[in-house]
Amino acid sequence: MQADLLDPSSLAPLFRPASIAVIGASTDPGKHGTIPLVHMKTSGFKGPLYPINPRATAVQGIQAFPRLLAVPGPVDLAIIAVPEAQVPHAMRDCAQKGVRAVVLFTSGFAEIGEAGARAQEEVKAIARAGGMRLLGPNCMGLINFANGLVATFHTAFGPGLAPKGRIGLITQSGAFGGLAYQVAQDRALAYSLILTTGNEGDVDVADGIAYLADDPETAVIMLYVEGCRDGRKLALALARARARRKPVICLKVGRTEAGIAAVASHTAALAGADAIFDAVFRQHGVYRCASMEEFFEIGYAASQVSEPPSGPRVGLITVSGGVGVLMADAAAARGLEVTPAPQQLQDGIRAMVPFAATRNPIDVTGQIVSDMGILERAIEMTLAAGFYEAVACFVGSIGRSPVNGPRFMEAFPRLRRRFPETLLAVTCYYTPQFRAALDQAGCLVFDEPTHALRAIAALTQFRRAFDAIPAAPAPLPAREKLPTAPCDEATALAILARAGLPVVPHRLVRSPAEAAAAAETLGLPAALKIVSPDITHKTELGGVALGLATPEAVRRAFDEVTARVREAAPQAALAGCLVAPMVTGGVEAILGTQWDPVFGPVVMLGLGGVFVEALNDVTFRLAPFYEAEARRMIAELRALPVLQGARGRPPADLAALARALAQLSRFAAAQGPALRSLDINPFLVLPQGRGALALDAVLLPA
Amino acid sequence: MQADLLDPSSLAPLFRPASIAVIGASTDPGKHGTIPLVHMKTSGFKGPLYPINPRATAVQGIQAFPRLLAVPGPVDLAIIAVPEAQVPHAMRDCAQKGVRAVVLFTSGFAEIGEAGARAQEEVKAIARAGGMRLLGPNCMGLINFANGLVATFHTAFGPGLAPKGRIGLITQSGAFGGLAYQVAQDRALAYSLILTTGNEGDVDVADGIAYLADDPETAVIMLYVEGCRDGRKLALALARARARRKPVICLKVGRTEAGIAAVASHTAALAGADAIFDAVFRQHGVYRCASMEEFFEIGYAASQVSEPPSGPRVGLITVSGGVGVLMADAAAARGLEVTPAPQQLQDGIRAMVPFAATRNPIDVTGQIVSDMGILERAIEMTLAAGFYEAVACFVGSIGRSPVNGPRFMEAFPRLRRRFPETLLAVTCYYTPQFRAALDQAGCLVFDEPTHALRAIAALTQFRRAFDAIPAAPAPLPAREKLPTAPCDEATALAILARAGLPVVPHRLVRSPAEAAAAAETLGLPAALKIVSPDITHKTELGGVALGLATPEAVRRAFDEVTARVREAAPQAALAGCLVAPMVTGGVEAILGTQWDPVFGPVVMLGLGGVFVEALNDVTFRLAPFYEAEARRMIAELRALPVLQGARGRPPADLAALARALAQLSRFAAAQGPALRSLDINPFLVLPQGRGALALDAVLLPA
Repeated sequence: MQADLLDPSSLAPLFRPASIAVIGASTDPGKHGTIPLVHMKTSGFKGPLYPINPRATAVQGIQAFPRLLAVPGPVDLAIIAVPEAQVPHAMRDCAQKGVRAVVLFTSGFAEIGEAGARAQEEVKAIARAGGMRLLGPNCMGLINFANGLVATFHTAFGPGLAPKGRIGLITQSGAFGGLAYQVAQDRALAYSLILTTGNEGDVDVADGIAYLADDPETAVIMLYVEGCRDGRKLALALARARARRKPVICLKVGRTEAGIAAVASHTAALAGADAIFDAVFRQHGVYRCASMEEFFEIGYAASQVSEPPSGPRVGLITVSGGVGVLMADAAAARGLEVTPAPQQLQDGIRAMVPFAATRNPIDVTGQIVSDMGILERAIEMTLAAGFYEAVACFVGSIGRSPVNGPRFMEAFPRLRRRFPETLLAVTCYYTPQFRAALDQAGCLVFDEPTHALRAIAALTQFRRAFDAIPAAPAPLPAREKLPTAPCDEATALAILARAGLPVVPHRLVRSPAEAAAAAETLGLPAALKIVSPDITHKTELGGVALGLATPEAVRRAFDEVTARVREAAPQAALAGCLVAPMVTGGVEAILGTQWDPVFGPVVMLGLGGVFVEALNDVTFRLAPFYEAEARRMIAELRALPVLQGARGRPPADLAALARALAQLSRFAAAQGPALRSLDINPFLVLPQGRGALALDAVLLPA
Repeated sequence: MQADLLDPSSLAPLFRPASIAVIGASTDPGKHGTIPLVHMKTSGFKGPLYPINPRATAVQGIQAFPRLLAVPGPVDLAIIAVPEAQVPHAMRDCAQKGVRAVVLFTSGFAEIGEAGARAQEEVKAIARAGGMRLLGPNCMGLINFANGLVATFHTAFGPGLAPKGRIGLITQSGAFGGLAYQVAQDRALAYSLILTTGNEGDVDVADGIAYLADDPETAVIMLYVEGCRDGRKLALALARARARRKPVICLKVGRTEAGIAAVASHTAALAGADAIFDAVFRQHGVYRCASMEEFFEIGYAASQVSEPPSGPRVGLITVSGGVGVLMADAAAARGLEVTPAPQQLQDGIRAMVPFAATRNPIDVTGQIVSDMGILERAIEMTLAAGFYEAVACFVGSIGRSPVNGPRFMEAFPRLRRRFPETLLAVTCYYTPQFRAALDQAGCLVFDEPTHALRAIAALTQFRRAFDAIPAAPAPLPAREKLPTAPCDEATALAILARAGLPVVPHRLVRSPAEAAAAAETLGLPAALKIVSPDITHKTELGGVALGLATPEAVRRAFDEVTARVREAAPQAALAGCLVAPMVTGGVEAILGTQWDPVFGPVVMLGLGGVFVEALNDVTFRLAPFYEAEARRMIAELRALPVLQGARGRPPADLAALARALAQLSRFAAAQGPALRSLDINPFLVLPQGRGALALDAVLLPA
């Protein structure tokens, strides 16, 4: 991880070049090297363009040069579209010319295997030595709508460029970028910038996010991601976007085995376990989508509002009772609150429509067929009540009605202007004109009622994430001197205790008498376990004795346990036994850390027991983090009710669990790659107010 | 439950009347009583229409009559649209005239409360006495596209009627019916019949399903449901639809507390726990949707195919690698199999496009930009391989391209005709003309790639459900003579044993000596529990002793347990103690039955342990059912891996569990309402081949 990669100022020549050369520009307008020039004739790019072509004197009517070095003025950005064999030569020319950024379209690098990967390393080395940022190889380039830079050979972007919007899109799939541009034409979606990263020889998704986080033209960031090589960098970039209060919407593919296999056969190897990606997204308030329509619709919603709603209360207004129920279900299922309307509002609605449902949803019923004013007034009254952070209306086919369409094309924008504090989402069947009028006014428009609630919930989630940004990264403790080989449980527990985690009182003993004395001091009944750096699965070898009620029982157990283990594992070095008091009650959790090759130190939480292990009810976070993040992590467990005291059990000490998770995360982060993994199993969470205790731990150094 | 309600022949006058009277027809064309006549002037209804109006001589140019009894010919169907106070009178006229079915639009009945409910009972009584089927009150009527019957006052249905299709739609919300009709105009959706059931005074959703199951015009049934009063009748109707191999797609609202509250404020009280609805849908192969767009899209897909695909293998073809990954994820997440393409097919694709991904997804890459024939041939080769039951293609914006659109408007229909056995789903951005050409040919068309896979998975599920229809309902055992008051564990276990369930060997003993002798006979170590009809929670009162290793320990335990319970519950009648051998190993399950007021006897399955109880990992079925259904029930548990032998445990005896569930379901069904509930907890499922055992049971008679 190189923190300076997140200094986006070095990307300025890539996104805002003063001058551009195209190496491989051709007189054939369909060639990859010509298309950017065709695009930029009409896209409004202001700086000089230099086609490079050994034979032509002009390309697309622009003066051409036989070599880059023949260009008279300085060149900020070079677009390279020559065959793979000529790329190193072209790159060296760029370095010599003082080019500051390169977009490399050419394929045939890491995506085709070993030889290509070597060629890519050579290209990267030239870029690095020349101080040039490199986009690609094997990429479709980028489009900056703010300055008319169209450095792509994708044909979807011409002729003419769509108007500039507020969405920055970064995609690892070039074809997806073209689709995203086309989809935008059907919706009120508009981009500030589209970046395709291809093989990510240098500039990757994280670089793009960091740039967009600081880009004043961009308010919303959308990502299409298949994997990444540096998960810490990605997390840092996401944290920066969140700090700037820019919603990030992500379509991360490769969730299933079939999907991961498809990724592998489609791009240069990219990595990262999907569950960790998921954790990183939750940790940084990223909204993850499961479909293209969700991706574009949440992106649209985020780009329509200047500030997401500050709370979860949603008022529902409907012309169909049935759809009202569907909306209430959708809202509740996504964590919004379908709070009953204030009495005064209910009375007001009922005064207009005696049979209306008024609680929430407000169902103005078929009455509106005879008097559309009723619907308009019901919406106005609900907004005026100022009680809901968002109001979602289902108004049927009004958006297509020749009579009522124009009325509401005027009414919704007026209401939006009058009540700018409340998010106003309208679902209906509409004409393009109707939709445009509402979009223009900053309403959210949908044709599916559940999608309106999905979008409101997403926006509310963004706001919650923005409001929960930690003031500073969690501070790290000093690095611990870890053992260099697998260590025994006593050593592991001692390290945990030094790291500030609560550990069961214990003593390492070397004789039956010592064992009995320790048990009397620490408290009976006692547990006794063999201690050996060579043995991980103590129970299986007979190395554990539990519930020892008397000193005599402890004494006997020492001999028995030692004898059993000697027989079962004659090679194992035995350090003695560990004596601890039996601790009962509470809920058994599993806490762990591991060094992930992509994401670095990751903390895991799960609840103990065979059922939950089988159900894979675990959750992850990148280390380090604060207790507030640990609490969100705990809240993600499906088995949360067990900790909250389901079925008459006392609620567990969640504060102690959160403290331990945060502490463990800082410990893991401080150790870095020196700590391969640490498993605390069980970690006993006692009833509220009584804390928590690590009962056993396995620590593996790198 | 009245089985004859499922004889749909009595509904013929409602759906296929030879003649219709409209009571409350008015000279004002906007009135509820006039709209059906306006509609039917152009809808193609062939029989005589009789407007009934005390003052007018003609309505909408049709001769009117002052009273129904003044109509000269017979009247099959009467539409009533008079104010609530005049409804009983109108109904009596109908009975006297020999009318056979009534559509009652009028509101102000059960939906407004107690008084309205009484008025509704009166109307029902008149209908019953007169031998008339009654649709409504408070309903929007029905439309039969086969004969031009438009017995509704919803204004959406005119002028003119959309062409007849294959979908029968039944909705409890009238407004939803109007929406569904409007939505259909945008898609290749067409109805055979639309039925709105309103307050369901007589004809309910189940009646409608039963009718449509037999209706030759209807191939697909779509339901909008908020609740029901007779869950057994609904289940019978769904079983009939499944027996006729007609896919049923359902939007059931009221999933969440907020949704249920909204239902209550919107219609006459309808009932039924959502979890049981869910079980009934799964039991009968109904596809349940979570949004309107899903509802209409699955309905569309089902109506497009004549027979759903016979297997789960899906071939994916894409022009964007990224979208290919998304499709693979979506397919796998929904249980489809993204099986690698046969080698010959892969070789053929690679011969055309050297850099193509060929495994599955098949990614023909940007190559197609220069040669669209590649895409067409890739699809053709995949279909010709005959390896996949369904093929899903993502072809980007081809459906809008002026150059390539026409080519593929011809190619897809041609491929569809050539390979009719394989489902062909196309996702792209399209013009209406492009879509229509593909729809016409029986392709499935989508604008979202994940939705294509969702639809294919839904169709595959229908096929699986059709192919798993049991030959006959499960036969019931004789009715058991149940105790009339709460009974003790020994009695409950004895009843279970007689019902054919495996029960732990046990003996009821009345003295320490008897206890010791029983334990020696049955096997040591033993368990001993107090037996009393007055005590349900034995453990809490100290009424259980476990792991008794010797006869002496059993003897002592008898006295101790009895003494403890006498002290803790001095009022309880003690029948003695129950002695049984300790059984260990295996997985603890919970089996239960309960008499549900809406659905009758319901069987529940969950796994034991506080975690799973907290996670609410339980599943239900209506009793009775066969073992095959029990196996599907078991497969729905999230904790299934525990039973399958997760983490080195032996797999459990699933056959024994399925047998016990089926047996229990038949027992519960035979008892009917006499059995309030029966809980077997724990029901120990032993390792494979070793069976299963009920260890404890609580039986509550009605």
